[in-house]
Amino acid sequence: MPTYTSGLFYKQRLLTPGPTAVPEAVLLEMAQPIIHHRTKQFQAIFGDLSQRLQRLYRTAGPVLTIAGSGTTAFEAAAVSLIRPGSKAITVASGKFGERWQDIYDLFGVAQVRINVPWGDAVRPEQVADALRANPDASVVTMCHSETSTAAAADVRAVAEVVRRSDALLIVDGITSVGALPVEMDAWGIDALVTGSQKALMLPPGLGFVGLGERALQRLKDVQPHGYYNLDLRRWLKSWHEKDVPFTPPVSLVRGQRLALEMIEAQGLENVWARTARLAAGTRAAFQAMGLRLIASSPSDSVTGAFYPPGVEDSKFRAALRDKFGVHAAGGQDGRGAKWKGKIFRVSHMGYVDAGDTLAALSAIESELIELGQKIKPGTAVAAAAAVWGASVS
Amino acid sequence: MPTYTSGLFYKQRLLTPGPTAVPEAVLLEMAQPIIHHRTKQFQAIFGDLSQRLQRLYRTAGPVLTIAGSGTTAFEAAAVSLIRPGSKAITVASGKFGERWQDIYDLFGVAQVRINVPWGDAVRPEQVADALRANPDASVVTMCHSETSTAAAADVRAVAEVVRRSDALLIVDGITSVGALPVEMDAWGIDALVTGSQKALMLPPGLGFVGLGERALQRLKDVQPHGYYNLDLRRWLKSWHEKDVPFTPPVSLVRGQRLALEMIEAQGLENVWARTARLAAGTRAAFQAMGLRLIASSPSDSVTGAFYPPGVEDSKFRAALRDKFGVHAAGGQDGRGAKWKGKIFRVSHMGYVDAGDTLAALSAIESELIELGQKIKPGTAVAAAAAVWGASVS
Repeated sequence: MPTYTSGLFYKQRLLTPGPTAVPEAVLLEMAQPIIHHRTKQFQAIFGDLSQRLQRLYRTAGPVLTIAGSGTTAFEAAAVSLIRPGSKAITVASGKFGERWQDIYDLFGVAQVRINVPWGDAVRPEQVADALRANPDASVVTMCHSETSTAAAADVRAVAEVVRRSDALLIVDGITSVGALPVEMDAWGIDALVTGSQKALMLPPGLGFVGLGERALQRLKDVQPHGYYNLDLRRWLKSWHEKDVPFTPPVSLVRGQRLALEMIEAQGLENVWARTARLAAGTRAAFQAMGLRLIASSPSDSVTGAFYPPGVEDSKFRAALRDKFGVHAAGGQDGRGAKWKGKIFRVSHMGYVDAGDTLAALSAIESELIELGQKIKPGTAVAAAAAVWGASVS
Repeated sequence: MPTYTSGLFYKQRLLTPGPTAVPEAVLLEMAQPIIHHRTKQFQAIFGDLSQRLQRLYRTAGPVLTIAGSGTTAFEAAAVSLIRPGSKAITVASGKFGERWQDIYDLFGVAQVRINVPWGDAVRPEQVADALRANPDASVVTMCHSETSTAAAADVRAVAEVVRRSDALLIVDGITSVGALPVEMDAWGIDALVTGSQKALMLPPGLGFVGLGERALQRLKDVQPHGYYNLDLRRWLKSWHEKDVPFTPPVSLVRGQRLALEMIEAQGLENVWARTARLAAGTRAAFQAMGLRLIASSPSDSVTGAFYPPGVEDSKFRAALRDKFGVHAAGGQDGRGAKWKGKIFRVSHMGYVDAGDTLAALSAIESELIELGQKIKPGTAVAAAAAVWGASVS
């Protein structure tokens, strides 16, 4: 039996920026009997998934489905696309950008690091300057939406800069694909990575890598210095055969196919619009309660705020969870900042709607009042509803 | 694939006053393989359910589980407990009270009808007067919560009156048991009926009849003039053997057992308190939007309001459903009033919480604004949150 709170809030609402809630229909789809992966039946499912991923990514090129996390997928792209002996220009503006730097450190790749203050976004000129100063750089890595800081960068503008060089742009779209507008081909992103457990409404377990023309060309030239499983060429070869090189997580694959069908049935632009409106309502509600946002350049997939003095992170989030069933995320420590205990974050990705968001805002407000903050009850939900306006649908 | 809206509201929220939403854990429990009902395994489940029903009813007597709707259960109680040739005093203050009168009409039972204006509740003195004038009345029937009018009656006070006579009090608790405080033994209710699809968080399909001391005595004396399946003595005999006379809906029985375990884990008083607070928040929100409540004596299990001029029922509720995924109920026609097309109702029973209620209120407000009502966006949710106050949990 699951745990239910005994109060006004009753249901569990997973509003962490990954993993996120999985729709009931997808859970049931994943509960279907296991089929073997070397069958026409699986091939049809996998082929359909691959086509839907292309439409999701807005690309004519392959989008590879890799067993693992978003990190697995990013690592595969990073090690498969770097030219041996060349440099990587690596943008970090939070915990995840720093992780991508760590991966290149581990593989002994020389890096030109662009470290941006947490909460801010890289400026395209910074990347242009780095490319000019380092003509031997063969990749640029960046996060579209930096989950740890709830900030989004202008990938389109950066891609325009990178396209003028010989370097490839590898984008961490883990909390952007399916949440924020991303146009892989139109913007000229060379490699775009995401994971299943964010906006794609699946449990963790699948990573995805989209490859553009230039990336496909690069794959032909480069000997990967990663592990067997991280060699994108293996995955690409199988992909052309509507197949996978290694035994895939069959249940997740069929669940992901259905989740993408759900997204397409709603219309991807409608999903982007909802995510943006949930975020706008949440930002307004946080500000109406006197909270300071953590991002100067906020992402619409996740919203974060600093705690006011006197609010203790672990107690606050435990109360949200135990009294209201609302699961929010805390902060993380990294090289650029120590935000553990100082902030909390709420997701707008995937299977979450205005009702869940009103529940979270009401719970957050109530707990802040409980902890002595001077807030008039109803402030948060009214601020969100006012932003959403009459045409809330 | 289920239907999802493409807007800010995404999930389907069933806020009709029955059927109501069923918790995921209960759905999964009902998806367990079918077991045979003449087994120790089923007997253990059924025995546990029966004990939990007694705690739910606050009674030491039997609570019978009958395959069928709440109407089946009420009909069984009505025909099993009336003394042949005697009169029934039948209170009607809405569609369901009228239905119980119809049942006695069908069985040719003479009635003393107490017809109360829809939206109001019977006064105990009215019952006392009727009992004095009709000493040959052997039963009194009434609704605790009249679902069609969203009004609740003071069952405790009526029971006190009826206890002084030889008549038995048969209470329709279909939208009260598990939602409003009901103390079967302490209040002296002789027969208390409910259904599975309201506050008990199950799909439709089970009805329940609790029997007090006086009702058990009456059952020994009376030849039922109902059908085979409506003879409570058969059900009672089996109940003593932790058994059922006819093949029971095995899945529903095991689902109901779990749903009651969930209610007990939360604490029945906490469930009552949540229901009352959801209702209080909803009434405040409706009134803040300028809507007039349909009940002068409102029930906490369901709230209803009259439409303002210019709002067309079927269009309004279709918009709530199609644009917001919010399922509200309309009005019903009866002998006492014609409320079809004039009102709408929202439930607070069972697996529904403050988050769902905020979603419904936000949707209702938005659609009323869309239809030209002058309401400041955010009014409804702010009014509910203000009533709930800081200690919203």
